[in-house]
Amino acid sequence: MSRCLITKAEVQLFIERCMGAVGTKPHHARSLAEVLVEGDHRGHYSHGLNRMDMYVKDIQTKICEKDGEPVIEKESPATALVDGKNLLGPVVGNFCMDLAIKKAKEVGIGWVVAHGSNHYGIAGYYSMQALKSNMIGMSFTNTSPLVVPTRGKECTLGTNPISVAAPARDGDSFVLDMATSAVALGKVELHDRRGDSIPEGWGCDAQGKLTPDPKKVLNGGGLVPIGGCEATGGYKGYGLGMMVELFCGILAGAQYSKHIRTWKVTDRIANLGQCFVAINPENFASGFNDRMSDLLSIQRELEPADSEHPVLAAGDPERMNMKKCEELGGIPYHINVVNFMNECGQRLGVNPLLPTDKVISL
Amino acid sequence: MSRCLITKAEVQLFIERCMGAVGTKPHHARSLAEVLVEGDHRGHYSHGLNRMDMYVKDIQTKICEKDGEPVIEKESPATALVDGKNLLGPVVGNFCMDLAIKKAKEVGIGWVVAHGSNHYGIAGYYSMQALKSNMIGMSFTNTSPLVVPTRGKECTLGTNPISVAAPARDGDSFVLDMATSAVALGKVELHDRRGDSIPEGWGCDAQGKLTPDPKKVLNGGGLVPIGGCEATGGYKGYGLGMMVELFCGILAGAQYSKHIRTWKVTDRIANLGQCFVAINPENFASGFNDRMSDLLSIQRELEPADSEHPVLAAGDPERMNMKKCEELGGIPYHINVVNFMNECGQRLGVNPLLPTDKVISL
Repeated sequence: MSRCLITKAEVQLFIERCMGAVGTKPHHARSLAEVLVEGDHRGHYSHGLNRMDMYVKDIQTKICEKDGEPVIEKESPATALVDGKNLLGPVVGNFCMDLAIKKAKEVGIGWVVAHGSNHYGIAGYYSMQALKSNMIGMSFTNTSPLVVPTRGKECTLGTNPISVAAPARDGDSFVLDMATSAVALGKVELHDRRGDSIPEGWGCDAQGKLTPDPKKVLNGGGLVPIGGCEATGGYKGYGLGMMVELFCGILAGAQYSKHIRTWKVTDRIANLGQCFVAINPENFASGFNDRMSDLLSIQRELEPADSEHPVLAAGDPERMNMKKCEELGGIPYHINVVNFMNECGQRLGVNPLLPTDKVISL
Repeated sequence: MSRCLITKAEVQLFIERCMGAVGTKPHHARSLAEVLVEGDHRGHYSHGLNRMDMYVKDIQTKICEKDGEPVIEKESPATALVDGKNLLGPVVGNFCMDLAIKKAKEVGIGWVVAHGSNHYGIAGYYSMQALKSNMIGMSFTNTSPLVVPTRGKECTLGTNPISVAAPARDGDSFVLDMATSAVALGKVELHDRRGDSIPEGWGCDAQGKLTPDPKKVLNGGGLVPIGGCEATGGYKGYGLGMMVELFCGILAGAQYSKHIRTWKVTDRIANLGQCFVAINPENFASGFNDRMSDLLSIQRELEPADSEHPVLAAGDPERMNMKKCEELGGIPYHINVVNFMNECGQRLGVNPLLPTDKVISL
């Protein structure tokens, strides 16, 4: 497959220019660009440049605010409730995560929730901010309904991701960043486009039955929670999706569950709920980083069931992807994505566009 | 099946007498009995009276301490590190959860971790304590290695449960209490005893391959994380098991991962790590209970895929079990369990034993 190589700086500035062209405040555009570039750099293309047009449209149609700052509505030494003022998700996310870290420095933990937020990119971006202060970080968001609860046949929960990051020794870390559905919607869409069937346990049809047919999942069916059907523990994934909702929409007083607008339909503001946590290991037993490194090593050094597939820790696949980008000298993008975004940039009068001259074969 | 009906009070006092007979401090015996009775009352017989002999033996062999109290080693307004002093798990658990709730009343959240703890029964017992103060409660514990990480073939993680309880309106609540393995070991043992095969996605053999044979899981294999194999998202369950370990053994400076003693082998102290959290909704958006009730209703009122199996929320199966006990006028126990425990009580010179005169057919 041929791919177009683009440096992180080039993507960053292009997104900033496009968002700026529709009137986004410069530091808001920068925040958004940073999260999207990080998504691509870590290999989660579904949450990167690929979604820029959605954010552009949100500003153009005024469904998202382009100016203002989040506001703290209620606060204690360890907690805060924030009104995201319908700003871009990364603006709200950075504000809340910075606040959580500040509180954790003072009293060992900061638990901050926001209403009035929007799509914030990869959940791991925020949890990882805590690593810079040698802290544990967590981030959760609710999302539009795409998941069918165990025994049901209607989507009432989002893919409600959980991210937890924890620092080990020498810059190493554990970074869990997972949807509480068995897989992301994008994976089902990809199989559908390729004409492939999907593994049993990814999604169900309109009758709530697990199906290998991606078309049935996409048309009237839905994703299923981690664990698949009831016999294999799908009710646990369903419970975790509810847990995320309770930390987000319920605690923050935002929209929640099936009250959240339909995925990709932006007829009204999102008013998503999000939750950001920082925990300072210094408030607990000393030697945290050493134990964390040992915990990671125990898993990574296991003899694998299949010698070609080593046992990994959460965050390792992303680390491998970033290393690949460094070796290549940029992030490899599908040419269709680059062309699509350049057309978008052209319409906005942006210059320069994304470079298309470094094509490689992967 | 014939079952022996025993009231909660009868089981409570019997366990207190047995633990007292081996020298356990009265209020420690009471704490243990309360957790075990609650386990049975909620239908989790694997974490109830059924395990009393294990706790008796732990005190008899002095592998657990029978006297003393947990000690706070480090504290901030929102956090605490506790030394459980190798006391019975429920003694440590109650101490930490009470402390977390106290802190949450003052600063909105309490995050308390303990080292030097032991098996604490059902995780949900502790998270549910927060409901009495109209708060969200959480509880996590690490356990002896029984789970094989994705791609591995050796058990390096416990079943590491997550419990989250949240209050809704009029005494209703959400109570998630789940192992991060696809199922509990007891379920695999039960299938083995019956000669039944197990569903694909519960456990693997000594080569790390999923197997329908419970004997292979129990002999050299292991449980697999929620999600089953890698293709169906088992790496997410593996990541959640690691998350629990990082909140427990790693943050508390207790034993962790494969350093924890082998399940059922009590040749050395357990030194388990546990984590207890209380979050006060009053520090966030008002109307929490109403939204929580609505979130539960949305799911419960869904049209089910199969009309005989209504959509439930976490905690509903346990609520149904408790209702059944109330209708019956006691907890229905298998006669073999009652006889086994009565033999145990007789050896300890306990009187009266569990009553065996109320036998019913279920």
